[in-house]
Amino acid sequence: MAIPIQLRINAERLRNDLDELAQIGQTDEGGITRLALSQDDVRARNWFANQIEEAGLIVHDDEVGNVSGILVSNNPDAKTLLIGSHLDTVPNGGRYDGSLGVLAGLECLRVIKESGITLPVHLEAVSFSDQEGTWQSFFGSMGLTGMLRELRPNDYRQSVNAMRAALDTVGIRDNEIYRARRHPDSIFAYLELHIEQGDRLDAAGIDLGLVTGVLGRTMLHVTFRGESTHAATTRRERRRDALHGAAHYITRAYDIVSEEYPEGIFNCGDVDVKPGQFNVIPSKAVLRVECRHPEEKTLARMEERLCQLAYECAEEHQLNATCETILHRPAVDMTHSILRTMETICQERGHTYQRMISLAGHDAQILSLFVPTAMLFVPTVDGLSHTPHEFTHWHHIEAGANVLLETILRLVGEPQI
Amino acid sequence: MAIPIQLRINAERLRNDLDELAQIGQTDEGGITRLALSQDDVRARNWFANQIEEAGLIVHDDEVGNVSGILVSNNPDAKTLLIGSHLDTVPNGGRYDGSLGVLAGLECLRVIKESGITLPVHLEAVSFSDQEGTWQSFFGSMGLTGMLRELRPNDYRQSVNAMRAALDTVGIRDNEIYRARRHPDSIFAYLELHIEQGDRLDAAGIDLGLVTGVLGRTMLHVTFRGESTHAATTRRERRRDALHGAAHYITRAYDIVSEEYPEGIFNCGDVDVKPGQFNVIPSKAVLRVECRHPEEKTLARMEERLCQLAYECAEEHQLNATCETILHRPAVDMTHSILRTMETICQERGHTYQRMISLAGHDAQILSLFVPTAMLFVPTVDGLSHTPHEFTHWHHIEAGANVLLETILRLVGEPQI
Repeated sequence: MAIPIQLRINAERLRNDLDELAQIGQTDEGGITRLALSQDDVRARNWFANQIEEAGLIVHDDEVGNVSGILVSNNPDAKTLLIGSHLDTVPNGGRYDGSLGVLAGLECLRVIKESGITLPVHLEAVSFSDQEGTWQSFFGSMGLTGMLRELRPNDYRQSVNAMRAALDTVGIRDNEIYRARRHPDSIFAYLELHIEQGDRLDAAGIDLGLVTGVLGRTMLHVTFRGESTHAATTRRERRRDALHGAAHYITRAYDIVSEEYPEGIFNCGDVDVKPGQFNVIPSKAVLRVECRHPEEKTLARMEERLCQLAYECAEEHQLNATCETILHRPAVDMTHSILRTMETICQERGHTYQRMISLAGHDAQILSLFVPTAMLFVPTVDGLSHTPHEFTHWHHIEAGANVLLETILRLVGEPQI
Repeated sequence: MAIPIQLRINAERLRNDLDELAQIGQTDEGGITRLALSQDDVRARNWFANQIEEAGLIVHDDEVGNVSGILVSNNPDAKTLLIGSHLDTVPNGGRYDGSLGVLAGLECLRVIKESGITLPVHLEAVSFSDQEGTWQSFFGSMGLTGMLRELRPNDYRQSVNAMRAALDTVGIRDNEIYRARRHPDSIFAYLELHIEQGDRLDAAGIDLGLVTGVLGRTMLHVTFRGESTHAATTRRERRRDALHGAAHYITRAYDIVSEEYPEGIFNCGDVDVKPGQFNVIPSKAVLRVECRHPEEKTLARMEERLCQLAYECAEEHQLNATCETILHRPAVDMTHSILRTMETICQERGHTYQRMISLAGHDAQILSLFVPTAMLFVPTVDGLSHTPHEFTHWHHIEAGANVLLETILRLVGEPQI
């Protein structure tokens, strides 16, 4: 196979695609709301399927709602090189988060098809379902890798039946999810282009980020239990105030992580207080806590320290505390050989780049447990993500998409990764 | 009029009444749930109306759901001496809170009726609607005093229309509420017997509390606003975390009130966090805060200090803060001449007693802004209130009811208070 050097994406076509897609689910604030399984999510998937057909590629969808376009190899026993990301968004999110990886993947397939190159592997540009976790994070990529064992909504206030009903409206049956699983031997590798979402590249004025791994992440429910007595008649020293204990916990947890785990990330995203009255001492406070760290072992120690802190705060306030792990995603490493290939391409093309860990979660972290995987970041201006203000300069998008294209071409030219 | 000395309540009859009433809304834990406007609340009111009829008294109800039994004077121009409290409860509350004052009032009327005394004033034993504020605190007593200007649910998550619908199910029309108002000149005085709810009497081994006043009380919404960015990709120093600021506020507010306002009471009963996701930095936290103090001026300074604290915490965390007063009830004093009468009775009967401020709110604080008012406390064992464990020894209940009876008899024997 002859690899034509300097094959380039059609920048105008990619830009038009991104502009068109950004119309679907546009909000008054200029953001995008395409919550997984919503009508706008379905519209986006249908639009994507049309683009695939128009390009003369094969449309494929599976039992967990993943949609992809395939450029078939002439080798019937070929493996598949997946290139993708997700078309769903958070509420009022940005235009490039997820969409860029899917549409850049499609554009690469179109360019390669047009060039008439004979492929030793199938190429597949895929949009994974519900990456953002409107219902269940990484639903699509976990379905494809066979890691989706049960329906488990991220939001503890959401019932499994409500999720089942929502899946049903888009034709996903929970008893057929297992059919979406592919055999790892059938996959050659997975590549994902994504916006960084943080401001490391932008602040340093660097063109591209080569992702070395993704932070490990644990979600916890930290619960404090006290006694809901009368707020005015209960003596100060007899208060067993679950929220007061929780407030101490929150302030100290941020301090501890900041001082003892400089690479760690802590977030307390919610507190649910019972009974929640002005004049009643709170008897229960449930905190939704998230910890992340690039090293799996340190993450475990950090979690242990944060649970210990809960017990300390509980004792001070005459409360009981429990820590329950809701979800754990291990810290993962990307595939070094693909990273080196990307690095070489950046050097040849004159792009500045930086190896970096991904702070946010991506479908690539699920795929990396399954097949050789690599990720490429483009800068996010001012690090603003999950907001209408998310923005990436066009020359960075073009650079990223071209490095992705070149990476595909070099990988399929190699017999083994 | 000859006042028979040593007229006594029928203790067995009062005890039977309290036992019967405690059956209505009994919970599995042995507590009582008679939320205002609920079916069990209506059952309790009907039961009370039956007791009034059986006693040969006149049943009266008004446009805000207050129910009372009247022993009529033979003087057609007589004023009314009100004796009462409330039959509604908090969820899983105690058996004496409110009920004692209503049923002791009824028992006093029965004893006086049986004694054949000629009365210069009407006597009325009243149960006020929704004292506990399932919908709107002091709904009945504010209706009777003409202070109820609008429907305003305590719970900001509750709509006015939901409250209107709930009122409608028990026959209360919001456009007729004004009809419940009585003229202050028509009321002679108001007396209320209640459990202390705190543990001051019980801890000191004192029989009765003579209430000198009720704490002033302000409910506030303290709101922090930040930015809901990605919890992992946002740099620590750029986080604008509304919940982190709120947690600092809560811990400091308790410290400040404890150190600078020893007689003040602070409670943060709830926090409502948006968007409330594990992996998103909270952009909004609304705290439901309550401050109480026996002195009106100091309460105002305390509120000001707590709002100042909100601004300080907001500045530290790059947030905005607002303080909104939801409700203010001024600190009130009880009528000294009635207090002195009660004191004399206690001395004559050999009961130990203590003058004390009420830490909890009572219908008496509403009535005290309107007519001469006094309150009598019986001890609460261990100060446990608003729980199934609430308890008062029977000899204290009997002593309280007899002092109430004697107070009525002495007051109606006096031409003026």
